[in-house]
Amino acid sequence: MAELIEYVDADPEVRAVFEDITTSRNLPDVNNFWKALAVHPATLKRTWESLKEVMSPDGALDPLTKEMLYLAVSVTNGCNYCISSHGAAARKAGMTPAMWGELMAIVAMANETNKLAFGLRVPVDPQFK
Amino acid sequence: MAELIEYVDADPEVRAVFEDITTSRNLPDVNNFWKALAVHPATLKRTWESLKEVMSPDGALDPLTKEMLYLAVSVTNGCNYCISSHGAAARKAGMTPAMWGELMAIVAMANETNKLAFGLRVPVDPQFK
Amino acid sequence: MAELIEYVDADPEVRAVFEDITTSRNLPDVNNFWKALAVHPATLKRTWESLKEVMSPDGALDPLTKEMLYLAVSVTNGCNYCISSHGAAARKAGMTPAMWGELMAIVAMANETNKLAFGLRVPVDPQFK
Amino acid sequence: MAELIEYVDADPEVRAVFEDITTSRNLPDVNNFWKALAVHPATLKRTWESLKEVMSPDGALDPLTKEMLYLAVSVTNGCNYCISSHGAAARKAGMTPAMWGELMAIVAMANETNKLAFGLRVPVDPQFK
Amino acid sequence: MAELIEYVDADPEVRAVFEDITTSRNLPDVNNFWKALAVHPATLKRTWESLKEVMSPDGALDPLTKEMLYLAVSVTNGCNYCISSHGAAARKAGMTPAMWGELMAIVAMANETNKLAFGLRVPVDPQFK
Amino acid sequence: MAELIEYVDADPEVRAVFEDITTSRNLPDVNNFWKALAVHPATLKRTWESLKEVMSPDGALDPLTKEMLYLAVSVTNGCNYCISSHGAAARKAGMTPAMWGELMAIVAMANETNKLAFGLRVPVDPQFK
Repeated sequence: MAELIEYVDADPEVRAVFEDITTSRNLPDVNNFWKALAVHPATLKRTWESLKEVMSPDGALDPLTKEMLYLAVSVTNGCNYCISSHGAAARKAGMTPAMWGELMAIVAMANETNKLAFGLRVPVDPQFK
Repeated sequence: MAELIEYVDADPEVRAVFEDITTSRNLPDVNNFWKALAVHPATLKRTWESLKEVMSPDGALDPLTKEMLYLAVSVTNGCNYCISSHGAAARKAGMTPAMWGELMAIVAMANETNKLAFGLRVPVDPQFK
Repeated sequence: MAELIEYVDADPEVRAVFEDITTSRNLPDVNNFWKALAVHPATLKRTWESLKEVMSPDGALDPLTKEMLYLAVSVTNGCNYCISSHGAAARKAGMTPAMWGELMAIVAMANETNKLAFGLRVPVDPQFK
Repeated sequence: MAELIEYVDADPEVRAVFEDITTSRNLPDVNNFWKALAVHPATLKRTWESLKEVMSPDGALDPLTKEMLYLAVSVTNGCNYCISSHGAAARKAGMTPAMWGELMAIVAMANETNKLAFGLRVPVDPQFK
Repeated sequence: MAELIEYVDADPEVRAVFEDITTSRNLPDVNNFWKALAVHPATLKRTWESLKEVMSPDGALDPLTKEMLYLAVSVTNGCNYCISSHGAAARKAGMTPAMWGELMAIVAMANETNKLAFGLRVPVDPQFK
Repeated sequence: MAELIEYVDADPEVRAVFEDITTSRNLPDVNNFWKALAVHPATLKRTWESLKEVMSPDGALDPLTKEMLYLAVSVTNGCNYCISSHGAAARKAGMTPAMWGELMAIVAMANETNKLAFGLRVPVDPQFK
């Protein structure tokens, strides 16, 4: 299992990232993903800054859609941790059980038809090129 | 490459599905995916009926969100045909270049952090269980 | 694209493998996969010997079942070359269009339900442990 | 972990699917996959009906071959739940330990050569196009 | 295919990134990946800055090892573009044909044993936990 | 979970492989991967002989680089067992925490840009063909 670095044991560079996370998200503590990433402070810092920018509430997509896209990828990859944490984030952003059910149906169906397209070696239609 | 079955060469069971597709979507012809699937009429019929139900405009998610979720999976799987066809469908449903840019950023980031979570073997936080 | 090494340009170690392939399979020439692997003779030799053993007609599974399993994996991974070459091998071993249609339906369905099981984080039933 | 819906707590639409599963398969109860899918009755119903059709004992492929193909995909995707449940189903359909050993050898080998074909960017031979 | 944005058609934000890439790498022009990413300047900028940091010649791993790791992932994912471009980068950093042959053998073997571990559901040894 | 075959319960063919593993690696016992593979002696023997050859200390790549490449693939595939065992092997071969942090950053970044290249359908630059 991952080595998890707690705030009290962290060096100043890590602490600064942890503080930015808890402040930005109004949380009492960072979750395990960030505590595990703290073993490599440069990766922790870059990943957090990228995530903060990509998942910013400002943009062309609303926060709920963003979290659902994140979840669709995580389900496809079978990342249990990510399904758990981004599932929680999506529900917090407003994903209802009915939305989750439809998301799962779409993700499953897309994985199915992706493989049909691979297996049948379907050529791209001229209008889609 | 795929064997593609055209409407004029298709048997009645396949023609009925092709007609339902072109009518439902108001298109002059089905795209290559369906022509390739027609080699196995039972799979053609079941896949179309499932897709029609899953991507139905009625539901908790709007058609644009549905197409973007489909696209997020297809990009993760590297299905070129599916990226092409569902990219076109998403643009038709209202996906702007800015939305597409954000979608790609999220899909890429999710694939990145999914692998970080795998590699670091991060335990699921108690609040996400 | 791959560098392809032809028999006439190959060194003796590579030639010996090529000869074993064409003799075992009663073919006039090896296919491109082997010509590409010949850039690293040790990998060529090991891969061929492993494949010859794994796909041997002697064993608990018949040659057609073996080729269809190979194909199921190749479709899941989206390996176009492998779908092409093992599709040909499966047809040669007796795979009919109806079998191919059912194989594709199963592979697609399995990819779909695999993702449903991931997303729903289904616990393994006690009787399956 | 998944929310699992038991028969006694299910609404009539879900109960009808559960009954069709237990009757078709002659089982005392449905397994966890179906209980988890029951959170979205439309997906439960569609998935079961698709699976029943795809895995039907009538067809060009026999039930054992079908289960082994399902298993080959599930191993490739690393779906632990699916390996467990379809492994049990395959054994019930007649998969011996020797067949399982050969199946695993083929799945592993196919994953290996799929990546060799990717990395070497092998062009498809003219006879396979 | 991708829309590719050339330097002469790019806005100042994109031009600045292109200039940093060509200067840092001492190249006459950026490659297609960056021209394609330029459709979304924020993603272009963040991706380049992350890549520049991650692939920096300063660090615990030397540039050749870094490029080979990048290549190992790209082969596993079957990303043809990435295999092409990072293959070139690895050769430029000193990867010999013998190294490339061994890299491919390891990547293929790892993909094989990864699937064996999945299928056999091997429990982690106490000493590896 | 896997059936694990211990040395004392193994038949001579399996014992011979186990002895070669413990001797070659100077270990008191084989790890669970080999005990699980022993259910199919032919696969055990072939896998071990292939692995011994591929991961041989003689060659163009040093043992540490080899183990890190193995690890990069295992992280990409999300193989928990393989991350655990090859992580231990890499640390034994000299991988420092800083190297591991950089390896993870590269693997994550490569997975990210692989998906960007897929989604944007970037054409291969002429100089990389």
